[in-house]
Amino acid sequence: MVIVMKADATSHDIEQVEQFINTHSARAHISQGEERTIIGVIGYKHQVRREHLLTLSGVEKVIPISKPYKLVSREFKKDNTVIYLNGVAFGNGTPVVIAGPCSVESEEQILETAHIVKENGGHLLRGGAFKPRSSPYSFQGLGEEGLQHLQKAREETGLYIITEVLEAQFVPLVAEYADVLQIGARNMQNYELLKAVGRVNRPVLLKRGMSAQMTEFLMSAEYIMSEGNDRIILCERGIRTFVEYSRNTLDLNVVPAIKNISHLPIIVDPSHGTGRRDLIEPLSLASLAVGADGLMIEVHPHPEQAWSDADQTLDPASFKRLMNRIRHFTEWQEIYQKEISAGQI
Amino acid sequence: MVIVMKADATSHDIEQVEQFINTHSARAHISQGEERTIIGVIGYKHQVRREHLLTLSGVEKVIPISKPYKLVSREFKKDNTVIYLNGVAFGNGTPVVIAGPCSVESEEQILETAHIVKENGGHLLRGGAFKPRSSPYSFQGLGEEGLQHLQKAREETGLYIITEVLEAQFVPLVAEYADVLQIGARNMQNYELLKAVGRVNRPVLLKRGMSAQMTEFLMSAEYIMSEGNDRIILCERGIRTFVEYSRNTLDLNVVPAIKNISHLPIIVDPSHGTGRRDLIEPLSLASLAVGADGLMIEVHPHPEQAWSDADQTLDPASFKRLMNRIRHFTEWQEIYQKEISAGQI
Amino acid sequence: MVIVMKADATSHDIEQVEQFINTHSARAHISQGEERTIIGVIGYKHQVRREHLLTLSGVEKVIPISKPYKLVSREFKKDNTVIYLNGVAFGNGTPVVIAGPCSVESEEQILETAHIVKENGGHLLRGGAFKPRSSPYSFQGLGEEGLQHLQKAREETGLYIITEVLEAQFVPLVAEYADVLQIGARNMQNYELLKAVGRVNRPVLLKRGMSAQMTEFLMSAEYIMSEGNDRIILCERGIRTFVEYSRNTLDLNVVPAIKNISHLPIIVDPSHGTGRRDLIEPLSLASLAVGADGLMIEVHPHPEQAWSDADQTLDPASFKRLMNRIRHFTEWQEIYQKEISAGQI
Amino acid sequence: MVIVMKADATSHDIEQVEQFINTHSARAHISQGEERTIIGVIGYKHQVRREHLLTLSGVEKVIPISKPYKLVSREFKKDNTVIYLNGVAFGNGTPVVIAGPCSVESEEQILETAHIVKENGGHLLRGGAFKPRSSPYSFQGLGEEGLQHLQKAREETGLYIITEVLEAQFVPLVAEYADVLQIGARNMQNYELLKAVGRVNRPVLLKRGMSAQMTEFLMSAEYIMSEGNDRIILCERGIRTFVEYSRNTLDLNVVPAIKNISHLPIIVDPSHGTGRRDLIEPLSLASLAVGADGLMIEVHPHPEQAWSDADQTLDPASFKRLMNRIRHFTEWQEIYQKEISAGQI
Repeated sequence: MVIVMKADATSHDIEQVEQFINTHSARAHISQGEERTIIGVIGYKHQVRREHLLTLSGVEKVIPISKPYKLVSREFKKDNTVIYLNGVAFGNGTPVVIAGPCSVESEEQILETAHIVKENGGHLLRGGAFKPRSSPYSFQGLGEEGLQHLQKAREETGLYIITEVLEAQFVPLVAEYADVLQIGARNMQNYELLKAVGRVNRPVLLKRGMSAQMTEFLMSAEYIMSEGNDRIILCERGIRTFVEYSRNTLDLNVVPAIKNISHLPIIVDPSHGTGRRDLIEPLSLASLAVGADGLMIEVHPHPEQAWSDADQTLDPASFKRLMNRIRHFTEWQEIYQKEISAGQI
Repeated sequence: MVIVMKADATSHDIEQVEQFINTHSARAHISQGEERTIIGVIGYKHQVRREHLLTLSGVEKVIPISKPYKLVSREFKKDNTVIYLNGVAFGNGTPVVIAGPCSVESEEQILETAHIVKENGGHLLRGGAFKPRSSPYSFQGLGEEGLQHLQKAREETGLYIITEVLEAQFVPLVAEYADVLQIGARNMQNYELLKAVGRVNRPVLLKRGMSAQMTEFLMSAEYIMSEGNDRIILCERGIRTFVEYSRNTLDLNVVPAIKNISHLPIIVDPSHGTGRRDLIEPLSLASLAVGADGLMIEVHPHPEQAWSDADQTLDPASFKRLMNRIRHFTEWQEIYQKEISAGQI
Repeated sequence: MVIVMKADATSHDIEQVEQFINTHSARAHISQGEERTIIGVIGYKHQVRREHLLTLSGVEKVIPISKPYKLVSREFKKDNTVIYLNGVAFGNGTPVVIAGPCSVESEEQILETAHIVKENGGHLLRGGAFKPRSSPYSFQGLGEEGLQHLQKAREETGLYIITEVLEAQFVPLVAEYADVLQIGARNMQNYELLKAVGRVNRPVLLKRGMSAQMTEFLMSAEYIMSEGNDRIILCERGIRTFVEYSRNTLDLNVVPAIKNISHLPIIVDPSHGTGRRDLIEPLSLASLAVGADGLMIEVHPHPEQAWSDADQTLDPASFKRLMNRIRHFTEWQEIYQKEISAGQI
Repeated sequence: MVIVMKADATSHDIEQVEQFINTHSARAHISQGEERTIIGVIGYKHQVRREHLLTLSGVEKVIPISKPYKLVSREFKKDNTVIYLNGVAFGNGTPVVIAGPCSVESEEQILETAHIVKENGGHLLRGGAFKPRSSPYSFQGLGEEGLQHLQKAREETGLYIITEVLEAQFVPLVAEYADVLQIGARNMQNYELLKAVGRVNRPVLLKRGMSAQMTEFLMSAEYIMSEGNDRIILCERGIRTFVEYSRNTLDLNVVPAIKNISHLPIIVDPSHGTGRRDLIEPLSLASLAVGADGLMIEVHPHPEQAWSDADQTLDPASFKRLMNRIRHFTEWQEIYQKEISAGQI
């Protein structure tokens, strides 16, 4: 439910509405627009009756929200959200490359990888310390020790760190080490976790669930944003289909579709989106061509020895070549975009 | 990795292996068979080298597990697991019916529903107090207040309570009120939550994720079981497909397929599996015919006023009729099964 | 477009409308109801303007059809269509069993199978003479020679024959030998073939395409029926999903869903729907429990030697056991249905 | 089955093998390599026993084919197949644009569209004369009249014509008018049709079925090629998934995956692959970036009046803009590809 206040509603009116909402075990999310104030009713436990709200002073109308998300939509915020981070920006037209191994395996491994990423122009370092593994008998990640290795890599290379958090209660711990918190595909609808990262002062990379519809994806972002954190980077990483030759089916339709209706930046992970080393380069370029704000690439000093995701991980030489090609491609693409903006094509 | 000990391995040998595993930041899951002891290496953070294990006293062989699950398989335990609960049993051939509303909305509503369930022969009462909702603007459940209403319903009717837990840190709270803990489809791969319910003394109902393969479903059960809790009830609730006329596609193939390879009981939720009130009865019977150990049915005193899932919720009259038909059907089916067991058909 | 004539429209009026439709390169499908006549405009090549039709004498209203099918719907025909065939009936409540090998391989093989089917109470004999195979290097079927073997089997056993037709031009040939024409899943949207079997005097078994939505399935039946053939048996045979352990996912939701909106009988093929011999029996019973009008089962004297579909084909002993169990099950089910009809449960 | 002849096998030996195959109601597809001759056994009706073949003179080995296709694979033909057509080439690195309306509606409409396509640099004209429509009550295409309009458009503009053929018996008729024969997604496994276009002297555009795996797609191409027609253009047009916001999910992974294993050119249809006008431009560029050999675009003088597929059809102004952008994009891409070939990036 969204409450539209009258243009002349006083701050007292707004306060009264907020209080009313609070007494119904819900929270008010107040967005002060230029002309009027809009109040979202979040996380309610008892039904807040529309008729009661209408009787309050200053309330113009109460609308059951037509779309199940609000803050993430372009209707709410017209301009692209740009997330600035360590000299790069997600969402300003220049693609950002996040790279690193699936898992942090040792200090040596992550330092070696960090240097490879840095030297080849990568912008952020990824690496899993807490790993969500389908089997309890698979490697589960180094935990806090892995976070410490990542910190070391940041100190040595200056690369900012992105790593996954699996559980609401670990958010403070991970946030101590990481510059960006990653929510994995399996946790896209772990709402307690979404709310927890929504309350912390770190940008969040939200991966699409493997069978998530676009609307559900945006609603999960809405969970984060409705808690106050508006620095969200969406990430398409492939969906589950009947297809037999690739691990997942990368859904590039979703990139421009989301840009039409949301102001949030969206990047693509072609490593998970294909599951095949030989498909990473062409799908990286396709992702950029379709308008993605960045890429997430798995790279390892010795992929054949990687503890997880070996089949979709690049070796240093392939990563170097990929980064070169991405650079050329995006240089051209920037010229192309400028010509389009100038109305020349 | 699974370690098979020699037949004459001493308890000291076993202790040594366990210690070795612990020093590698992993845990040992020890299963004492009649002839020999088998030790599973769980949740490791550092790679435990096979060669090292082989040098330990009493170790016969170290086998990388061929299947990613072990404890839940029939190879590990040949006979059906039967879970006894308040006079009923999941897995002994007689189907159990769990029924109740999608959400606990008020004390009156849950008490009224509990009486309907009880009078018509339902065995357990379901009802969501913590609701995982796609949108933050939807009703999120009454929380602990809802749990208290459920407790009241148990006191009044004697029905045991099953309710969903969304987050590892809430497991103790929910376990205080609930007789069975439910893990919802969205959390099937929330491994922290699985581990948490694996450490508590309550049976767990584990719902299949909406795009989970059978193997992934069993691995999630393995997570729970590898923590020590072997009272797990699986639940098929429909998968996500391209189909347009039903909310999900109920996958009944999975019931006998799982029974072939696992000893765990499995029930079916035709309310979510179809999303349509008119399909619940035929799919309930089909679920029983295919060998399901029980059903989970949504019922509400006034479905048209339900705060969630109204389209797939039965009214009291329909529920009464359904329960009658289920009773007749299962009476026949029991005769049929006996004749089969006796080799008569 | 559907034209509803006035109650007092004369046969001349109707003729005029028909002529008007014909001059627009379309065909009229005239359904004379008790009160008034309804005319469907079929297969048009030039747009027939609604305004023009309204000016014709006797026309009450012209409605763009809300659903893309009409003749197959219960709105058009309230009672179940029952298809009588050699002493059995599809759609009258007693399930019919069609059984036989995937492919006709030789006269000996099909005769041996026919006797197995007959002796165990099967009602029709299936067997492919023209096989749609994914690879051109796989066995393509014996062609007309296979049809002759099937004819021989009918002569010897009295079993009616059902076999697949792959191509519009072969319909007359196959119809010479077969009692029921089968349209395979791959051809569900081969509209020329649908129209061809719509013009022949043989019941048609229409299999659902592996990614067909229910509406598309019914529209394909509508193609057949709009050509004049109203003896159509629908067949659910599994849909393509991400599931890994069964060849297809049997969608049993579709059976009662179709019965709600269509008067046509629908049977289930658990051999293709599971692709696994061990799942055929439980899914056969589930299909009957959900209301299917029959089953299609693959059986072969020596499945391990079958030229196609070996994994989902029963041997004679398993088929015998299955037929026994189906018999017991349906006997009970008939009593159950009678009690339901009598309002006793 | 594939027979590898000895290096010194005589033409008489080959003839004998061919005869042997023919007497078993199969056909031999003889491929004379530089060193030795390979014979494929196609479309067999009786099992040709491997042991018998091995006794024939000149036969070195008989291998059950490991992959279910052969002629379409790079193992069989290493270099890209390039299909030359009216001054353009599919498969030589420069993308070809096919454009036109979904359906031919009238002479005026198709002539007007043809001029729009021509003026904006499109290379071939598409337009459906025979339309496969889900409902018999939808517009079915103008038939031969539509083919005549297309011919007129070719005469006026010089654009070559591509149009769909629905049925084996219509292949000669359509081939009289069309320069390229299109096999639609619904007919990808209509093997009689595939064989028929395999015997005609026209390039074939083969669209991927909406739930076809890559292997099945290639096997359908193999059907065409094993009949003698090796001018096949593959076309990805989106697969059916659970996704809700686009009509289909464009699977761009398949483009480089197919290029790895097949020598055939592959283009992309972003109109069907998205079903949304606003997604056509970004997905066109992504298709080119991923290595597609061309695009198929729906355009209409007045999309809002189009008789079919209006939502995914561009108007003349949008098409002009798209073609401009494609031109710029491909110019850059060619430079980029040259630099890659020269080893500069």
